[in-house]
Amino acid sequence: MDVRAEIEKRTGEIERVIASYLPPEEGYQKTVMEAMNYSVSAGGKRLRPMLMQETYRLFGGSGRVIEPFMAAIEMIHTYSLVHDDLPAMDNDEYRRGKKTTHAVYGEAMGILAGDALLNYAYETAFRAFALEPENPGIVPALRILARKAGIYGMVGGQTIDVESEDTHDMTREKLDVIYRLKTGALLESSMLIGAVLAGASPDEQKIVEESAGALGLSFQIEDDILDVTGTTEVLGKPVGSDEKNHKATYVTFAGLNKAREDADRISKWAIAHMESLPVRNEFLIELMIHLIGREK
Amino acid sequence: MDVRAEIEKRTGEIERVIASYLPPEEGYQKTVMEAMNYSVSAGGKRLRPMLMQETYRLFGGSGRVIEPFMAAIEMIHTYSLVHDDLPAMDNDEYRRGKKTTHAVYGEAMGILAGDALLNYAYETAFRAFALEPENPGIVPALRILARKAGIYGMVGGQTIDVESEDTHDMTREKLDVIYRLKTGALLESSMLIGAVLAGASPDEQKIVEESAGALGLSFQIEDDILDVTGTTEVLGKPVGSDEKNHKATYVTFAGLNKAREDADRISKWAIAHMESLPVRNEFLIELMIHLIGREK
Repeated sequence: MDVRAEIEKRTGEIERVIASYLPPEEGYQKTVMEAMNYSVSAGGKRLRPMLMQETYRLFGGSGRVIEPFMAAIEMIHTYSLVHDDLPAMDNDEYRRGKKTTHAVYGEAMGILAGDALLNYAYETAFRAFALEPENPGIVPALRILARKAGIYGMVGGQTIDVESEDTHDMTREKLDVIYRLKTGALLESSMLIGAVLAGASPDEQKIVEESAGALGLSFQIEDDILDVTGTTEVLGKPVGSDEKNHKATYVTFAGLNKAREDADRISKWAIAHMESLPVRNEFLIELMIHLIGREK
Repeated sequence: MDVRAEIEKRTGEIERVIASYLPPEEGYQKTVMEAMNYSVSAGGKRLRPMLMQETYRLFGGSGRVIEPFMAAIEMIHTYSLVHDDLPAMDNDEYRRGKKTTHAVYGEAMGILAGDALLNYAYETAFRAFALEPENPGIVPALRILARKAGIYGMVGGQTIDVESEDTHDMTREKLDVIYRLKTGALLESSMLIGAVLAGASPDEQKIVEESAGALGLSFQIEDDILDVTGTTEVLGKPVGSDEKNHKATYVTFAGLNKAREDADRISKWAIAHMESLPVRNEFLIELMIHLIGREK
């Protein structure tokens, strides 16, 4: 399998799905709609919808009920970036080489466009009920979507991160929680929603969630390693920026060699754990292997 | 009926319902949970949950399925205030005599606490499925909740408002849209969700939605009138602050006398429209009469 070519092809398909769920830019609210669409269209690997769709396929899913959830998870991911980039947060003018949303539309509109995207994610996900009214996985999928995005997931991780930076009070345990919530939760959400909508059993769901969590943790450790060793091109932010910001990372606590060992071990475990399932999606495994150690 | 005493009694009951749906303050995420609970507990008339519950009762609703939605609408209303108060928006340090959320917890936490509340509103509303799994109104109620809070509702109104202030480009038609979306949409949401969860017919839902929209519009016109004539105590912001901010209001376009006439006519219509329904909730009518012309 030429995994790069396959990823490219599927990314194109996912882009079309996401675009079909974005709001038309019309009426008095045109500007916020433009700001939402600008933010979502600004790039990214569409990793979360891709993992969601492939996990759905892994468990035999073949309907369109997954599509509103694919769009919704990307909207939630995007809103978190829009708010992260705000002056009161990371204060970034550029992301992936493009101006950030508040840099283009102003700070007030940046806040509101983020709010609008988060809310529209739910409006979008609710469209699943019209596609498969009898699918018993929709309500559980909605619960997962909300929980993993909220205080027990992504937002929880962001707030611990913000607070730790203010107080310069980081411990290894706290860092682990931040990584699991801030990065891991949306990956768990993506893969778990795919499994649930395709009717995976509770045991299968558990394996998927654990693998996704491990994948997220290995991504985050890789990111910390790249911050020390990598190039700005791969990393998307200046090399050494964490160190410059006096930000404690996995490398700070474990050292570079141990961090590399751990990232390798955790990512291999994530893949082996997925391979322990009685079902198999070759592309999903290839995708996970491909993603490890690369930019996200 | 002693409407003031009734309102006070029911507000107490609603406070207890809302409090029961707020997150416990524990774990590494303790601070954001405190910020969320601080924001929600900072007061307010609980007008939206009260209108929701009374409309639910109007159509014979007597279950607890309404409660997560009552908490959710208050969380959505609160998140919008938390973000409205941010430095990049209205930059308010006080609301209802208490420090605003970002003034207490910092700007980054203010943004995240607002995000967390919006997301938690959906987490909370989804608990309705566990309370009445067979209630066919839950999915429609969720759709209403999301639509009226988003770009076709409250957030849409906020963005038009923000943009008009920047460009000093206000028309009477645009002001009408802002009022209908920014203030009206959540009142429509509140009353409509009550009706839908109690099984009201489409015709009845239409009347409820129209009445709620008219109520919101009359509130907003009253607010503009009070900005010119009122006392700071009633208004909760300095008298004349709209004028000082060169903000075009209903009074700017219609003049004070016509504004008074319109507010009176629209609010009377809202009540008469509700009274045209074949069902009756005496307290709801008394509440609407009481609310008109008073602080919200």
